[in-house]
Amino acid sequence: MEKEKPVGVFDSGIGGLTVVKRIASVLPNESIVYFGDTARVPYGSKSNETVIEYSIQNAKLLLKKNVKAIVVACNTASSVAIPVLRDMFSVPVIGMIEPGSKMALRATRNGHVGIIGTRATVSNRAYSREIHQHNKDIKVIEQACPLFVPLAEEGWHESDAAALIAKAYLSPLREEHIDTLVLGCTHYPLLANVIQRTIGEEVLLIDSGIAAAEIVREELDRIGLMSNSNAMGRMDFYVSDIPSTFAKVAALFLEREIKQVTKVDLDYLQSLHG
Amino acid sequence: MEKEKPVGVFDSGIGGLTVVKRIASVLPNESIVYFGDTARVPYGSKSNETVIEYSIQNAKLLLKKNVKAIVVACNTASSVAIPVLRDMFSVPVIGMIEPGSKMALRATRNGHVGIIGTRATVSNRAYSREIHQHNKDIKVIEQACPLFVPLAEEGWHESDAAALIAKAYLSPLREEHIDTLVLGCTHYPLLANVIQRTIGEEVLLIDSGIAAAEIVREELDRIGLMSNSNAMGRMDFYVSDIPSTFAKVAALFLEREIKQVTKVDLDYLQSLHG
Repeated sequence: MEKEKPVGVFDSGIGGLTVVKRIASVLPNESIVYFGDTARVPYGSKSNETVIEYSIQNAKLLLKKNVKAIVVACNTASSVAIPVLRDMFSVPVIGMIEPGSKMALRATRNGHVGIIGTRATVSNRAYSREIHQHNKDIKVIEQACPLFVPLAEEGWHESDAAALIAKAYLSPLREEHIDTLVLGCTHYPLLANVIQRTIGEEVLLIDSGIAAAEIVREELDRIGLMSNSNAMGRMDFYVSDIPSTFAKVAALFLEREIKQVTKVDLDYLQSLHG
Repeated sequence: MEKEKPVGVFDSGIGGLTVVKRIASVLPNESIVYFGDTARVPYGSKSNETVIEYSIQNAKLLLKKNVKAIVVACNTASSVAIPVLRDMFSVPVIGMIEPGSKMALRATRNGHVGIIGTRATVSNRAYSREIHQHNKDIKVIEQACPLFVPLAEEGWHESDAAALIAKAYLSPLREEHIDTLVLGCTHYPLLANVIQRTIGEEVLLIDSGIAAAEIVREELDRIGLMSNSNAMGRMDFYVSDIPSTFAKVAALFLEREIKQVTKVDLDYLQSLHG
């Protein structure tokens, strides 16, 4: 029965649905319980202390839903909360930073790797630290792109404004002649086209969600908890708030209809504090 | 002693500091206690139910700081929570919608008034309802501008991207030949230049914060609680989170140095629920 438990995924909001999509594609028979902290989104502009506290509450909520592993599908939370969560809980905790870094290390040819993410992810230098643990010679250039999240959520992917903003953010990375660029925020795959055009077709984009889904598969295999089911896994969605545009934006992220979404009371969530 | 109590101001984050600036300019001798809910910002993309709950907690926090009046310096919270707050508390509660609407009614010559705000403010049609209570013949055109807040907070006021985004948002209002435009979000005064250029120099921009500051003066006068002090009022700042960029962004909004900011524990805030 342990094997048929769901995989838990949490994010600050709906961006993590791009990661759910990757996991479902790599592991179609696994069930997934998703929690999006939409009442307290975004995390990228908040302090590390606050992000860690929220992450503990979110992980506890998923464990109450009986998950066999926890995926932190938020780069900001991954960059500060993973060690705390691993200390507190016995299930595997998979973040975005290690998988994305590992893939970038394998991909780069010239050793110049770019990282784009929220202010919090970049100021924590989480990707640089992870990459340098494996190879000190890699030149890592990190760039915060705070306007990318609202552009993605508003559906302005192909606008001239998005192109101008991408050019402003990505020029410093172009000047460093990176050959690999990590999309260090779960929203960014939605902007992959404009990012690719701006940074140049020769640069390889790394989707941390794809990298993380692969690690989820490896981890479940390692602990012997891969589902035996032949049926398509079920997906259950929980959020701390259901704003009016939720269904529309969620469909944009997941590229599939979301039938039921359950609201988690914020008082209850807050009561799960560390 | 009642007269020397501070005026309480709360906002979802730091945008309300533009309102504090207006109040301090109209009422320089009044002391102000400001609370910015930076751990749960923004409100504009959240449900009405959640925004009401947060607003009650914020008001209760200010009352514990002994305020003689409460200014809801957030259009989203004003558009949904004012009636609830007035029912619950005996001090005057001043929002953004009534003052901004009143000023627009006085200003318009052709009866075509534009309103720009967050998704929540616009979908609540709070300004339309308020204006139509006084004059049913006014044509009110509301437009959500969700990308304006991140542009303002990132300091992209004068960028080409801001100009493109402003053009996209404001074209429908231009087509309706408005002669008055209400800046229905406390962040928007920071973008006043690009908004004015885009909508046309002949359109009058209404800063709801200026309108609200005037109403605060009227209300304090009406209840006989205007400060007798000749000294400059003191300002105390409380926030639910202190992110790394707080001081920089706050200085941008208030155009004055903020010496001390106190963090309010989120557990405590949540314990004040309605």
